[in-house]
Amino acid sequence: MTRQHIIEQIRKKQSYLCVGLDTDINKIPKHLLSDPDAIFTFNKAIIDATKDVCVSYKINTAFYESLGVKGWEAMEKTVNYIPAEHFKIADAKRGDIGNTSDQYAKAFFETMPFDAITVAPYMGADSVKPFLGYEGKWAIVLGLTSNIGAKDFELQKMNDGLLYEKVIKTVSSWGNPGNLMFVIGATQANEFTHIREIAKEHFFLVPGVGAQGGSLEEISKKAMNADIGLLVNASRAIIYASEKENFADEARAIAQQYQFEMKEYLSLSV
Amino acid sequence: MTRQHIIEQIRKKQSYLCVGLDTDINKIPKHLLSDPDAIFTFNKAIIDATKDVCVSYKINTAFYESLGVKGWEAMEKTVNYIPAEHFKIADAKRGDIGNTSDQYAKAFFETMPFDAITVAPYMGADSVKPFLGYEGKWAIVLGLTSNIGAKDFELQKMNDGLLYEKVIKTVSSWGNPGNLMFVIGATQANEFTHIREIAKEHFFLVPGVGAQGGSLEEISKKAMNADIGLLVNASRAIIYASEKENFADEARAIAQQYQFEMKEYLSLSV
Repeated sequence: MTRQHIIEQIRKKQSYLCVGLDTDINKIPKHLLSDPDAIFTFNKAIIDATKDVCVSYKINTAFYESLGVKGWEAMEKTVNYIPAEHFKIADAKRGDIGNTSDQYAKAFFETMPFDAITVAPYMGADSVKPFLGYEGKWAIVLGLTSNIGAKDFELQKMNDGLLYEKVIKTVSSWGNPGNLMFVIGATQANEFTHIREIAKEHFFLVPGVGAQGGSLEEISKKAMNADIGLLVNASRAIIYASEKENFADEARAIAQQYQFEMKEYLSLSV
Repeated sequence: MTRQHIIEQIRKKQSYLCVGLDTDINKIPKHLLSDPDAIFTFNKAIIDATKDVCVSYKINTAFYESLGVKGWEAMEKTVNYIPAEHFKIADAKRGDIGNTSDQYAKAFFETMPFDAITVAPYMGADSVKPFLGYEGKWAIVLGLTSNIGAKDFELQKMNDGLLYEKVIKTVSSWGNPGNLMFVIGATQANEFTHIREIAKEHFFLVPGVGAQGGSLEEISKKAMNADIGLLVNASRAIIYASEKENFADEARAIAQQYQFEMKEYLSLSV
């Protein structure tokens, strides 16, 4: 999927919302559990209910892997069900030596039709570059994450700035704003103005709004650029809005609240 | 699996060899390709042929994921086939926010019977600790990896030493030598003496011998401790020793060469 397509979809839908499918068998409505394909049935209902107010879906691979082969099947069915217009992210945090990252890229870009995968940068260039070699596909590299552990390494001082700053600067030289995004956690709002200065054109995938407490207003005002440059993810706050029969309607209602708010911030931008 | 069990197996077999099952459908012998379960059939033959000369198997998850559901099935069958006495490593390089690392731990320690998983440290404490909370299970955290990209971040200077040194020191405080190991690439032989000083008691999982060119002799002499403290992995050099019908015998022959050499280094140690 091209950068231009993503921008057009955002402008058309007045939304830069990504819905996170962190689907946990222990948290979905109880009435679905008799369904042998409960995870996919749940995802299908969430996608049907939210697809016109979001531009992206993010599948968190951990929640599928924990169910073994059945979970992997549900992931494949889900990514194949997401409409073609949506940006499909595998939130997989992969990254390994070159010949192994090649295999991960194949898994998510060829065997499954994801548009993007989240990538951990620790192992350096040859662990990231295999994800940048596919026309129309994206690597979304961890920059500054939303969790408390970000302080352990990402926010530690290097000789020339903080580790996450070095990661963003260095990784930027391996790709371009058409095949590379960064994960920047919404809970790191203090850093957003600064991060936008380091990576002016790149899209940021921003998790941490909702259950983790980040402010959509603050990150939108600080980090939106001329091409928007933001995909803001909410997972639990949307998909677990209700445990009742009408869970998909409730999920839609929350997603729509985000979209209304996003529409306002888009109107303030250039 | 306890630390004591691993040490006993090493002393009994006079081997600290880990065989890496990076099984690539494009590299296994052609006569196996008519088998609908070719990956598992290949792994089974390799395990049968090498199990008495190694103490561990390492499954590189990328090579299975690239085949989709069928690959995930082959991974589950393979890990269930490995004998109970062997230390079973998922080389998965996982790591995410706490609730997601919980799911990865469940995938590899509960849904599948792995003893250990490799973990990427970038996201800090809450991304690593979920893997340390299982009795008898291990996190093997990336320290200094074998690939060229190690220079991009791992070998970069922090205020107080190199990043990889900080990672080893910090992560050590989250676990203990009974539930935590580090990945140290064999190609980084210059650093081994120093790394052993930082982490005196921890086992190191050492990839990079064989296809990547690291020296078994050098790392053994520099980093063996009183409890051995080394698991040395070879993947391609062993499993792709031959493409012929007798591939398993050839794989065994290479594995046995490593074991002979290891026996010698063990005799030199305390």
